[in-house]
Amino acid sequence: MILTDFMDSAHARLETLFNQYLTKSPSPAKTLQEALAYSTLNGGKRIRPLLVYLTGKTFDAAWENLDVPACAIEFIHVYSLIHDDLPAMDNSDLRRGKASCHKKFNEAIAILAGDALQPLAFEIIAEHPAALSPAQRLRMIKILSEMSGLKGMAAGQMLDMEGTHTLDALTKMYGLKTGALLKASVQLGAIAANISDENILDSLQIFAENLGLAFQIQDDLLDVECETHLTGKPTGNDKTNQKTTYPSLLGVQKSRQHVEKLFSSAIHSLDFLGEKNKLLRDFALLLMQRKK
Amino acid sequence: MILTDFMDSAHARLETLFNQYLTKSPSPAKTLQEALAYSTLNGGKRIRPLLVYLTGKTFDAAWENLDVPACAIEFIHVYSLIHDDLPAMDNSDLRRGKASCHKKFNEAIAILAGDALQPLAFEIIAEHPAALSPAQRLRMIKILSEMSGLKGMAAGQMLDMEGTHTLDALTKMYGLKTGALLKASVQLGAIAANISDENILDSLQIFAENLGLAFQIQDDLLDVECETHLTGKPTGNDKTNQKTTYPSLLGVQKSRQHVEKLFSSAIHSLDFLGEKNKLLRDFALLLMQRKK
Repeated sequence: MILTDFMDSAHARLETLFNQYLTKSPSPAKTLQEALAYSTLNGGKRIRPLLVYLTGKTFDAAWENLDVPACAIEFIHVYSLIHDDLPAMDNSDLRRGKASCHKKFNEAIAILAGDALQPLAFEIIAEHPAALSPAQRLRMIKILSEMSGLKGMAAGQMLDMEGTHTLDALTKMYGLKTGALLKASVQLGAIAANISDENILDSLQIFAENLGLAFQIQDDLLDVECETHLTGKPTGNDKTNQKTTYPSLLGVQKSRQHVEKLFSSAIHSLDFLGEKNKLLRDFALLLMQRKK
Repeated sequence: MILTDFMDSAHARLETLFNQYLTKSPSPAKTLQEALAYSTLNGGKRIRPLLVYLTGKTFDAAWENLDVPACAIEFIHVYSLIHDDLPAMDNSDLRRGKASCHKKFNEAIAILAGDALQPLAFEIIAEHPAALSPAQRLRMIKILSEMSGLKGMAAGQMLDMEGTHTLDALTKMYGLKTGALLKASVQLGAIAANISDENILDSLQIFAENLGLAFQIQDDLLDVECETHLTGKPTGNDKTNQKTTYPSLLGVQKSRQHVEKLFSSAIHSLDFLGEKNKLLRDFALLLMQRKK
């Protein structure tokens, strides 16, 4: 299957799943449920669930076994975006070209929407209807919870709020804030395909780590270069917030070179797959060319 | 074992566990880890973990199988307190007699501390070291996630923010905001003891539901009656925030009578236990007499 067709299929499955989990069964708190659906269903690149699907399919997992982990990791990602946008955090009024959750609803609702999305991720894996064993589901929950908490994403956001002033600190922060969840994505896909070989899992994580850092530096570059209408986020934000970024430390040209190097390392970490590297490699190449 | 000794043992175990999970293994985000420890280790009644222990021991579970679910449910409860205290929510500067998390640290840290406590609850169950089967652990995760999200605690907090103006709406809100997690507590204890009889689980949930509502109306009454130094929270808050409460709808006297009726119903729902009702009954009687 070529990548664009694959991505279309994955996006279609995700839309169906999001609707099923977020709109079909009524919550006693109607507005809260609307906020969850608003923030989750408004597009976005869906990189994390795509990585679950792409990794799973690389190892011949059934689509049905990838749906729930793909969905769960996007719930975690969306909750983090809702909270990151809050006034006390990055204070961003726009997300994916639309009003961010607290602007569309209010701050209390945005806090609660994030709070309610998070357990939903674990709930749907725990009650997974398809043919994943209890042991597989527990491994997924373990990885997802670990990578989103005090040793992963939340720690990364905290370091981001504190401010990072060296390339090492910035790289570490990006690794936690973005890399951790991408590492979880490839692992979830592999576990759904019943992969337990540590060497394979390690190589996949190196792929995800390089991809995540490249992606984050691209974001830094886009913040300097692009127009709001392309990224769907207000730009020049980093400068306004006086955040240290790769371009502010290395300059634009060297940052661009570093991005290319990271994509190249990511792709090389897939060498062990031989010709089966195609899906993940093509996805990395696609991200490499992104303009938003 | 008499209740006071039981509670001392349980509290001692919890302190050890909290220290183990929150302070032993360093996070890359030091301040965030401090905030988690600050909010979790500062006392509190520990009603939810006590219910896990009391229910589990009623059915002869081993202490070691109750530790992790007891700890996990308190993490969920503490995260909810941190977020409820935020300026955009209940805007409370005090918690358990000390500065609330966002006053001690700041708003961003308080948001992230709640965000990081939540997955820790699921993580420790998923990697449970003791003799709980994968199926038991998945059931626990399912109950805990469901009861804390869009159909449980988060929905309750949302309805609370929206304001409730009738006794029915208020009762429903309390059932979600407080009752859901108490229902989860007794179920977690029972599951750790390998109970799967639906009748037993239903009776335990009725016990928890009545206990939860009684407790919440007591809170309403304490807010009217007590001094700040007893509850550790600023009082008269409900009136200042113009919140509907049981006393504001029913009057103080009728609210007190209703509390007694609810405790009585809670205790009667334990009749199926015969003489084994002692631990849970005595706990209900103890709560009935609380002055803070």
